[in-house]
Amino acid sequence: MENKYVIGLDYGTLSGRAVVADCKNGMILASAVKEYAHGVMSECLPDGTKLDGTGWALQDPADYIDVLKFIIPEAIKQSGVSKEDIIGIGLDFTSCTMLPVNEYNVPLCLVEKNVSRPHAWVKLWKHHGAQEQADKINDLLQKRGEIDNIQFGGKISSELLLPKILQIVEEDPYIYDEAAGFLEAADWLTQILTGSRKRSGNLAGYKAMWTPETGYPSKDFLIELSPKLENLVDEKLGSDITLAGQPVGYLTERWAKELGLCKGIPVATAIIDSHAGMPGSGVCKDDQMMMVVGTSSVLLALSETGYSKNGVVSGIKGAILPDKFALESGLAAVGDMFGWFVDNCVSWECKQTADEEGMDLHSWLTKEAAKLSPGGRGLIALDWWNGNKTPYVDGRLSGILVGCTLLTKPEEIYRALIEATAFGTRKILELFTESGAEIHTIIASGGIAEKNPLLMQIYADVMNCEIRISATDQTAALGAAIYASVAAGRERGGYETIQEAVTNMSHLKDAVYKPEAGAVEKYNGLYQMYCELVKMFDPKKNTIMTRLSELH
Amino acid sequence: MENKYVIGLDYGTLSGRAVVADCKNGMILASAVKEYAHGVMSECLPDGTKLDGTGWALQDPADYIDVLKFIIPEAIKQSGVSKEDIIGIGLDFTSCTMLPVNEYNVPLCLVEKNVSRPHAWVKLWKHHGAQEQADKINDLLQKRGEIDNIQFGGKISSELLLPKILQIVEEDPYIYDEAAGFLEAADWLTQILTGSRKRSGNLAGYKAMWTPETGYPSKDFLIELSPKLENLVDEKLGSDITLAGQPVGYLTERWAKELGLCKGIPVATAIIDSHAGMPGSGVCKDDQMMMVVGTSSVLLALSETGYSKNGVVSGIKGAILPDKFALESGLAAVGDMFGWFVDNCVSWECKQTADEEGMDLHSWLTKEAAKLSPGGRGLIALDWWNGNKTPYVDGRLSGILVGCTLLTKPEEIYRALIEATAFGTRKILELFTESGAEIHTIIASGGIAEKNPLLMQIYADVMNCEIRISATDQTAALGAAIYASVAAGRERGGYETIQEAVTNMSHLKDAVYKPEAGAVEKYNGLYQMYCELVKMFDPKKNTIMTRLSELH
Repeated sequence: MENKYVIGLDYGTLSGRAVVADCKNGMILASAVKEYAHGVMSECLPDGTKLDGTGWALQDPADYIDVLKFIIPEAIKQSGVSKEDIIGIGLDFTSCTMLPVNEYNVPLCLVEKNVSRPHAWVKLWKHHGAQEQADKINDLLQKRGEIDNIQFGGKISSELLLPKILQIVEEDPYIYDEAAGFLEAADWLTQILTGSRKRSGNLAGYKAMWTPETGYPSKDFLIELSPKLENLVDEKLGSDITLAGQPVGYLTERWAKELGLCKGIPVATAIIDSHAGMPGSGVCKDDQMMMVVGTSSVLLALSETGYSKNGVVSGIKGAILPDKFALESGLAAVGDMFGWFVDNCVSWECKQTADEEGMDLHSWLTKEAAKLSPGGRGLIALDWWNGNKTPYVDGRLSGILVGCTLLTKPEEIYRALIEATAFGTRKILELFTESGAEIHTIIASGGIAEKNPLLMQIYADVMNCEIRISATDQTAALGAAIYASVAAGRERGGYETIQEAVTNMSHLKDAVYKPEAGAVEKYNGLYQMYCELVKMFDPKKNTIMTRLSELH
Repeated sequence: MENKYVIGLDYGTLSGRAVVADCKNGMILASAVKEYAHGVMSECLPDGTKLDGTGWALQDPADYIDVLKFIIPEAIKQSGVSKEDIIGIGLDFTSCTMLPVNEYNVPLCLVEKNVSRPHAWVKLWKHHGAQEQADKINDLLQKRGEIDNIQFGGKISSELLLPKILQIVEEDPYIYDEAAGFLEAADWLTQILTGSRKRSGNLAGYKAMWTPETGYPSKDFLIELSPKLENLVDEKLGSDITLAGQPVGYLTERWAKELGLCKGIPVATAIIDSHAGMPGSGVCKDDQMMMVVGTSSVLLALSETGYSKNGVVSGIKGAILPDKFALESGLAAVGDMFGWFVDNCVSWECKQTADEEGMDLHSWLTKEAAKLSPGGRGLIALDWWNGNKTPYVDGRLSGILVGCTLLTKPEEIYRALIEATAFGTRKILELFTESGAEIHTIIASGGIAEKNPLLMQIYADVMNCEIRISATDQTAALGAAIYASVAAGRERGGYETIQEAVTNMSHLKDAVYKPEAGAVEKYNGLYQMYCELVKMFDPKKNTIMTRLSELH
C-alpha cells in the first residue's frame, strides 16, 4: 500500500498553520504558516472606527480565508506529496472565537452596510467585553439553582458563546436580528469547505453550554435572560452536531480546486486548538495527563465521569476521545508571567551580566535559579498574575509574592514564579484525581516545556510524577491531522479509531523527567503553604484582591 | 552677654560627627565628620581572626577615640569659635553598642592577650549573634510571668544589652570573667572624658532593662538565666545613673588639652542617637510626633503613661524629656526597601529611560509614581522586607506584594512600597494614640524626608496629619548640642530646661504637607486592607512566613 497523507490545520490567535503528515507514522513532511493580516483588533476596526470601552478583541474572517488559500497549497508544494495521496483535512481553532453570519453563511462584517459595526466582526476567544453578560448568566443560573447542572466548572466565563451573544443583543440588537446564525469560526470554516451545516460537538460542548442529553440552555432560561433570545437555539444555533474524529462533510469541488486537493475528501469535525494537542502529543490513555506550557497552560486528562467544579471543565463525553470525558483546566499565566517579570522587574545589572555572558535574560535567570534549592531562600508566590481559573474562576484575583527580604535576588523571584506555576498545576492535578482520573505520566508540550528543563524538573518534583515531552512542537496541527486520518477511515488509508491513530502517529522524546525524592519532600512542604495561601485569598472569604481590582 | 556655644557629638554606625552650635538660636557653625577606620567587622577581626557563624557586627573602640580627636578640634577650627565660649559637650551614640572593659575602663580588646577573641570587641547595635540568648531570656520572662513587667514592647530583642552579655557568658566565659564592666560605648566615652563612672538612664532604660523603680533585672532572674550572672549587676553594671540633660561629669584636664577645650565644662548624659533627634528636630510637645525617615524609620512621641506592647517601647520616664515617657517604634526598612527595589527589581528599560532623562532611578520612579492615584492600579504591600517591629516584633516576618498583574509596572510597585511604609507608620501612630498620645503634627527629618516630597505627601494623606520638616539635616548632633546646653545650665550661658533649649535652638522649614481630603479617603480604604493583611500574617496564627524564614 502506498503512503497516504493528511492535512492538519491549526488556527491560532495570530496565524494559521497547515501541516502535511504521513498517516503511517505521523511524520510531518511540511508546514506552512501565515499571519492574519488584521491580527487582533482591540482599538479600532479596519475602517478606522474606534472601539469604545475595554476588552475588545476582534478579528477579520477574511483573514482566515486568505491564510487558508496560502497555507494548504504551500504545505503541499513543500511536502512534494501528490494530491491524490491526501485523504483528509482536520482543523483546530481557538475557541470560543465566534461570528454572526447571514443565511448564506457570509459573515455580517463582510456585508458592506455592517463594516463599521463592531459587533458584526469576529469576537476572538479572548474578547473580554462580555463580563457583565457573563455575570448576568451566572446570577440567573444561581437563582434557578442550575449552577450544578452544567458542565462549566461551576461558573460561566465571559469567553463563552452565550455571554458574547448576549453582549450583541444588548449593545447592537440590529446585528442580533440580522444574524441567521452565530458560529464558531472553526465551524464556519469546515462548513465553507464542505457545504455542510454540521457543528462540532467539541466546540458546542465546551463553549456553548450544549450537551448531547440536554442540548443548549432551555428556552425559558434564555427568555428569562433576554426575551430576544427566545428562538436563539432554533433559529441561530445549529443542533446537527458531529463528534471528534467524525467527518463534518466532504470537500466541495470549488474548494478542492482552490486549494489544490481532490474533491470529496473528508473534513474532520473541528476541535479546540488546545484539545487537538491531546492526541497530537500522544495522550490517549486514562493514566496520562496532557500539559501544554506556553504563555498560559492547558491541562487535559481523560475520565469516566464528568466533573464541573473549581474551574475544571469536563465538557461532554466524547469531545476529544470516544466515550470519555476530558477534564480541562490550566493556568491563566505561565510564560506571560515570566515574560512580565523579565520585562519589568529584572535589574539592569542582571541584564548587563547576561549580556556579558552572551545569554538572554530568561536563560540567564534560569541558569541562576537552577543553583537554588526548592523555595530558594524563602519565597513563595501565588501565580494569579492573569487572574485565577482553578479553583476560583475569578479574573479579578491577582498575583502575590510572599517572603521578600532585603537579600532577595531576581533569580529567586524567577524561581518562585516557576514554582508557583508548578504548585498551581499540582492543585489542578489533584482536582483531576479527585474526579476519578488516575494519572501516572504527564506528557508535556509547548514552547516552555521544550526550552526549559529546569521548569520541567521542578514540575516533576512538585507533582511527584514522571514527565515526558512530545516529539513534535506542532502537537495541535498533528492532532488535527490525526482527526483527519480517523475521519478518512481505514479504507482510504487512515484509521478506524482515534486511539489507533494516536498510537501510530504520535511520539515522545527520549528524555524523562523523574521526580527526585529530596526535592519532592521539600516541595510537599512548600505546596502546603501554597494551598494555605490559596485558601487565605478565597474571594468568597477575603475580598482584598477584589477590592484591589476595582482600582484597575 | 557674649554668644556661647556647645558641641554636639553624633556617633553613627560608620562615622562620628561633631557640630559646634550657637546656644542662642541653635545655628550650626561648623561640622566635622570622620569614618571609623575599621568600620563594621562582620567577617574577621583586625588581626585576621575569622568570625565563625553569622550575625557578627563588631567595632574597634580605638576608632571612636581617633574620631573624637579629629572631629572636635576640626569643628572648632572651622567654626572660628574661641574655646572659652564653648560651654558644654553632648553626645549621642548608636545603641545598644556595648563593650567589656577592665577595672581601668580599658576595653578588653585593646589588651594584647585578648585581641584575637571576638567577644572582647565592641558589639555594634546591629550585632545579631545573640538571637539564641534573646530567645532564652524571652522564654524565661514568659515562664516567670514577667513579660508584662518590663518596658520592652513585650519582647526582648537580640540587640539589647543582656542577650549580648549572655552570648559572651556562653561563648567566651573567660571574657565575661575578665570584664570589670559592660558598658554602652556612649557611656564609655563620657566616662573617659570626665573620669566619672555614671551611666545614662536613657541607654539603661531602653537597652539594659533598667528602670528607676526596679533597677536592673533581679538577681534570681539572672541566676536562673545563668549562674554566672549572679553578680552581674553589682559587679559589672553601674547603678549610678543620670538622666537626659544632666551632666555625667566635667571634662578632665587631659582631655581638655587633647581636644582643645576648657577643663571642667560639663559633658551631658549620653543618649541614643535616634532619641537625640527628638529635641534636635524640635519635638518637645505632647501633640507632636518625631519621624526620622532614612534607611529605616524611627518614631517617637511623648506620653504621660508608659506603654510596652506590640513592639512599642516606652523605656523610662525622663529618658528624653523630663517627667514624660517617650513612646518609640519605627519601621525596620524604609529607604533600605526602596534601595533593594531599585537595585534588584527595576527593568533595564526604566534605567535607560531614566538615564536619557538625566535622572537617577529613585528620582525617575518617584516622578512616575507621582502620576498614579493612591493604590495605583491595585497593588498593596506589607513593608516587612527587614522583618516586623510593630506589632509583632519578629525578624522572621517578610515582605509581601499583593495585586500583581501582567500590566503591573515598576513605578506602581515603587509607589506601593512607599504606601506600605506609610501604612506601617499609621499603624504605629494609632498604637501611640491608643497609649495616650494625642498627635496633631508630625515633624519629619532624615534623608528621605528631605528629598522625597511625594513620600511626605503620601504620609500626610495616609495619616491624615500635617507634616513639617526639620530645618537642619543634623537633628541628632543638634539634639546632642541641646542636651549640652542644658547640662551647662543658664549660668554658663545655656538653658534651664530642655523645652526651653528646644524652643530656642530647633527650627522647622516653611513647607507644610497637608492631607488632601480625596486622597485621605482613598487611603482609608487601602489602610483597611493593609490592616487585614497584617492580621492575616499574624505569626501566632499563620506560620507561613516563619516556615519560609527557615529556608534562609
